[in-house]
Amino acid sequence: MRASRFFISTLKEAPSDAEIVSHKLMMRAGMIKRLGSGIYTYMPMGLKVIRKVEAIVREEMNRAGAVELLMPLVQPAELWQETGRWDKMGPELMRVKDRHGREFAIQPTSEEVITDVVRSEIKSYRQLPLNFYHIQTKFRDERRPRFGLMRGREFTMKDAYSFDRDLEGMQKSYQIMFDAYTKIFTRFGLKFRAVAADNGAIGGTGSHEFHVIASTGEDALVYCPTSDYAANMEAAEALATGTRAAPTAALTKTATPKAAKCEDVAKLLGIELSKTLKTIALTAEQEQDGKVTKQYFMLLLRGDHELNEIKAAKVPGLTGAYRFSTEEEILEVYGCKPGYLGPIGTKAPVTVVADRAVANMSDFVTGANEVDFHYTGANWGRDMAEPHITADLRNVVEGDPSPDGKGVLAIERGIEVGHVFQLGTAYSEAMKATYLDENGKPAPLQMGCYGIGVTRILGAAIEQNFDDKGIIWPTAIAPFELVLCPMGLDRSELVKEETEKLYAAAQAAGIDVIVDDRGLRPGAMFADWELIGVPHRVVIGERGLKEGQLEYQGRRDTEATNVPLADIVEFIKGKVRQ
Amino acid sequence: MRASRFFISTLKEAPSDAEIVSHKLMMRAGMIKRLGSGIYTYMPMGLKVIRKVEAIVREEMNRAGAVELLMPLVQPAELWQETGRWDKMGPELMRVKDRHGREFAIQPTSEEVITDVVRSEIKSYRQLPLNFYHIQTKFRDERRPRFGLMRGREFTMKDAYSFDRDLEGMQKSYQIMFDAYTKIFTRFGLKFRAVAADNGAIGGTGSHEFHVIASTGEDALVYCPTSDYAANMEAAEALATGTRAAPTAALTKTATPKAAKCEDVAKLLGIELSKTLKTIALTAEQEQDGKVTKQYFMLLLRGDHELNEIKAAKVPGLTGAYRFSTEEEILEVYGCKPGYLGPIGTKAPVTVVADRAVANMSDFVTGANEVDFHYTGANWGRDMAEPHITADLRNVVEGDPSPDGKGVLAIERGIEVGHVFQLGTAYSEAMKATYLDENGKPAPLQMGCYGIGVTRILGAAIEQNFDDKGIIWPTAIAPFELVLCPMGLDRSELVKEETEKLYAAAQAAGIDVIVDDRGLRPGAMFADWELIGVPHRVVIGERGLKEGQLEYQGRRDTEATNVPLADIVEFIKGKVRQ
Repeated sequence: MRASRFFISTLKEAPSDAEIVSHKLMMRAGMIKRLGSGIYTYMPMGLKVIRKVEAIVREEMNRAGAVELLMPLVQPAELWQETGRWDKMGPELMRVKDRHGREFAIQPTSEEVITDVVRSEIKSYRQLPLNFYHIQTKFRDERRPRFGLMRGREFTMKDAYSFDRDLEGMQKSYQIMFDAYTKIFTRFGLKFRAVAADNGAIGGTGSHEFHVIASTGEDALVYCPTSDYAANMEAAEALATGTRAAPTAALTKTATPKAAKCEDVAKLLGIELSKTLKTIALTAEQEQDGKVTKQYFMLLLRGDHELNEIKAAKVPGLTGAYRFSTEEEILEVYGCKPGYLGPIGTKAPVTVVADRAVANMSDFVTGANEVDFHYTGANWGRDMAEPHITADLRNVVEGDPSPDGKGVLAIERGIEVGHVFQLGTAYSEAMKATYLDENGKPAPLQMGCYGIGVTRILGAAIEQNFDDKGIIWPTAIAPFELVLCPMGLDRSELVKEETEKLYAAAQAAGIDVIVDDRGLRPGAMFADWELIGVPHRVVIGERGLKEGQLEYQGRRDTEATNVPLADIVEFIKGKVRQ
Repeated sequence: MRASRFFISTLKEAPSDAEIVSHKLMMRAGMIKRLGSGIYTYMPMGLKVIRKVEAIVREEMNRAGAVELLMPLVQPAELWQETGRWDKMGPELMRVKDRHGREFAIQPTSEEVITDVVRSEIKSYRQLPLNFYHIQTKFRDERRPRFGLMRGREFTMKDAYSFDRDLEGMQKSYQIMFDAYTKIFTRFGLKFRAVAADNGAIGGTGSHEFHVIASTGEDALVYCPTSDYAANMEAAEALATGTRAAPTAALTKTATPKAAKCEDVAKLLGIELSKTLKTIALTAEQEQDGKVTKQYFMLLLRGDHELNEIKAAKVPGLTGAYRFSTEEEILEVYGCKPGYLGPIGTKAPVTVVADRAVANMSDFVTGANEVDFHYTGANWGRDMAEPHITADLRNVVEGDPSPDGKGVLAIERGIEVGHVFQLGTAYSEAMKATYLDENGKPAPLQMGCYGIGVTRILGAAIEQNFDDKGIIWPTAIAPFELVLCPMGLDRSELVKEETEKLYAAAQAAGIDVIVDDRGLRPGAMFADWELIGVPHRVVIGERGLKEGQLEYQGRRDTEATNVPLADIVEFIKGKVRQ
């Protein structure tokens, strides 16, 4: 490609609505252009990256035996009503009526459509397993679109759907996709991590997220550096540590004026935060025969730990809907306003649920159910009954033991770019998608679904790879692998000639090369390509040419390297294919 | 590709809603699957064809200097309001509201968005010319979607937009696109014709349609076999033929009971239809200062000719809105009910507009403005005043002189698959898209737009290339170039071995090959591939192998050819690259 025939448009300053580095750099590098809130035109430089991402995804999906098709963007409401998602999805699902008043969804994913395709195409177990995928525009009407391509409304996603006879087959299909994803993200040249995820409301049997590692990532990833264990924060299990020590202190009621928070209590009493107890009052409502009954729960966490709401929702009695108790309820149940609650001497019967770490505490500090008072020296069994339930309620922290027993946990930040999911029969049963088994009996199809946020990859790659000059693309997904920067193209016949030769030679070697023939001054030219983030640059200058030398610089290199003219193509090939 | 790893799903019968052959065959060959009215899933076999079409389009667009980007599907209403198309487009434009109640269009084309991109990106004449294109999903809420991919609602289109400094530059960009389209359709391997088209309401300065020739086509294409002249029926000029002969007959009022149509009159009087006059009464209404004034026009055509409404709309006085006069108006103006009108002795003053052919008639038959009566022997000048206006009002017919004077016209049927259009400054002026010229003064950008109906190509290609067995794809856009049909794969080690060898050799030779390893009986296997329309087939049988022979058959061949095993790859390469 010649820069004069391409479209390059860089900016010195990012627009003010760009909050994060990838959004700023993509705007400045002319990769995207805002059309509306969360809606972007992919400019030529950005589209080139998207196409490279898509090509790698497509190759590995095909290699893994998945078959590409293309499902429509505009999908009839009837299918979405069959699975109940038409009502469940809320305003995120963009809905539209046609001229006859019929309702449609603009697809955010395609479980319904693919299940509809498969239920009419698949008759027999002989046709299984099957895995269909498409790379298609999606729309999600986010309440607050932001961060450029990271949380846009219109975006491109690869979504795949597998269909199997039984659980075992589905898990095999799932593993094939897991392996394909590992290959895909490896080929992108990004640091990434696959973590076990919670199955959430869909109720499947297994799920993993693929995250690009970036300190700016929204998600906390938990992993064990000395083993394979990795999970997202929702799913990472916090084991009990140590055992409960015997009481050594006497229970003492202590004045703690205006110290309603654990941090304030610890400071006031000069103790470690981990010796305090955090009390969270929850209410679960159940309706039966039109009558609502309330059940009250007291969740107990160590003062230095954080509640994990996903885990709380798995506690018996809380698996339906639960909520934080209102101040009114707390006053009624505990006879005390929030901030001084504790498991000793509560007024009404409540279910006490202790985190595993709490169950092992001794000589701890807890609210006295009286404003401005706490107990010190509190001990289970001696000063209050044992907790009704002991459960994993908290987010893990660095240094926690790994659930696989093979080390301690570390935490890093990540950006979710892929998700593989064992769906089971949730969709196939709702939509009556069955096949005939060996005995001629209909059975529901076992499904898996597998997504990659194609356009999001761009944002995530940049969040992981940038410096103060701009983007640093991994070679595999760079808009161009190599840029040729001739100096004084209009003045020097020699430069012109050698540039053309090198351009032709690089193309012949299969290198995706752009020659900057725009006639810019060197400073402006270099700044553009550093901003755009092309990973390999060769400067072609008359003085160097006369000495038989060209100047190579990798985007991460601090200095240029002289390379003999005769070796340059092989040299670049080596760099590009590294 | 191995058929067992792909997805093949053929049908013996087409669904009953498939009216035309391409729709029937695409459904039967498992290329598309209906999701809703005018909305189709592109199944793997169909998507492969679409991708090949897209690749050829992309290559030639890039070669012609156009730059690919990707504009969003969901586009803010505000842009569409700037050009007035939000109101003008009517229910064909699919409109949607987001969660905040803001309005959007699902794009049917992207003139507004590209003009918005360009007006913010282009500052100077130095950045011109420019041509941007994208290949993107489109939606048009057709009132009556039908014919499968031929008139769908959701479809894929390549649309390009050129931007130039002046008319001359724009015409140059237009010619480049015209040439690129010629290359694209040639590469598809389809018989096609570019025809001049009417510019219609957009009011540009030039326009051509590209049609795939097919006897089932909706459009009539006019061309001169002995010259370059070609136009669609709307635009093809009908020249005057011959000169007016002197009168030889006397004007005679003749009873023509119940003969209100030219055909009936000719039959009754035993004369040729071309000696009769067809009278069409039109009314043009004009509003000025709240008062509506009506003007009446009498259009005259030869009895054997057809009115061309596009041409009629160019007659002075009819260039605004016109309509057919009501029976009431006719009674009032002509004092006679329709069927017996004529230019002799009309009651009120009307503007008489004669087609060129009519102006040259003599001794003709025309209505007497009296029910059940006609005049015979009518002559201009002698029996009535010369027509107020003589104009080209009719559709040309086979044998008419070519407007370039180089022969006579022929007519064939076509399917419109491409359109190139000189837009001028209609959009750039409405949207204030200007550039600074050499003198630093702002000037509106000269635009062109260029569309190719990507998914429609599939339908058109089939309408042109099929037989009673199924589709016959041109090699360039066939889902696979070659199918290998091994006989008794499960019984013969030799067949299995040679099939694998040939499969590998074909792949190595760059041939897009599929091997049918599904284990079907020969009849069913051959029927599938004939229906799907793969252009080249090789049958691998044990008997032939033992004699060192394979059986080749082209999709259009009536018989198979034996080819020595050693030559087969070169043989196929020759066929495929033909």
